[in-house]
Amino acid sequence: MKVKQIEHIGIAVKSLDETIPYYEALLGTKCYNVEEVAEQKVRTAFFKVGEVKIELLESTDPEGPIGKFVEKKGEGVHHIAYAVDNVNEALTEAEESGLRLIDKTQRKGAEGLNIGFLHPKSTHGVLTELCSEGDK
Amino acid sequence: MKVKQIEHIGIAVKSLDETIPYYEALLGTKCYNVEEVAEQKVRTAFFKVGEVKIELLESTDPEGPIGKFVEKKGEGVHHIAYAVDNVNEALTEAEESGLRLIDKTQRKGAEGLNIGFLHPKSTHGVLTELCSEGDK
Repeated sequence: MKVKQIEHIGIAVKSLDETIPYYEALLGTKCYNVEEVAEQKVRTAFFKVGEVKIELLESTDPEGPIGKFVEKKGEGVHHIAYAVDNVNEALTEAEESGLRLIDKTQRKGAEGLNIGFLHPKSTHGVLTELCSEGDK
Repeated sequence: MKVKQIEHIGIAVKSLDETIPYYEALLGTKCYNVEEVAEQKVRTAFFKVGEVKIELLESTDPEGPIGKFVEKKGEGVHHIAYAVDNVNEALTEAEESGLRLIDKTQRKGAEGLNIGFLHPKSTHGVLTELCSEGDK
């Protein structure tokens, strides 16, 4: 697979309101976007640091994936997202190489990206997202 | 604090030999350096993806920090390292802003970098490293 760069790092937090000021101070940059992704039951907040984004994820529902993650593991890194040219092609290539997928085909994520997740069971413990610009 | 970019993402794994081929396939790039950091009781393997490095960490001692991490939490993201101009100045600034530190002053890490860690208790669950080139 040809990954172009790390697109973002997803970090699960209990509260955007409490965590945004910390990251603004740490990174020396303002949060540039807050967005709700209803399908994933999260509110997200984005920062840019170099070519990579930090995506904070706050659950809007204790039964959503981030709600369950924080309940079980506490706050922390939730996933790493890599930019690829075409998510569907990358998912097919990943499956053919023996990796387990969460998403068989791409779907829409925050910021209009096409996204697809690999399963952490086959990625040495790191929940791994592949993403591309939404028009591809 | 002015962070320049994400320098690397540290990922704890059970075995470099088992994990390096996975990341070479995922990232479409070869591991460019394997290095032992005796003080930290780890062997490290590096990949470059865009401007960011992926650092795999394999424990050389079950009682070392990575050995304990994998025993307790399994494989997964261990820390995020941000590049700053001067680690000692950044640690001082972090402490003055109320953050808890693991390292009061910089020390040497892999690849000759100056490094210092913030404590995850005050960074919303993410073990956070600050680093700079070794001659600064």
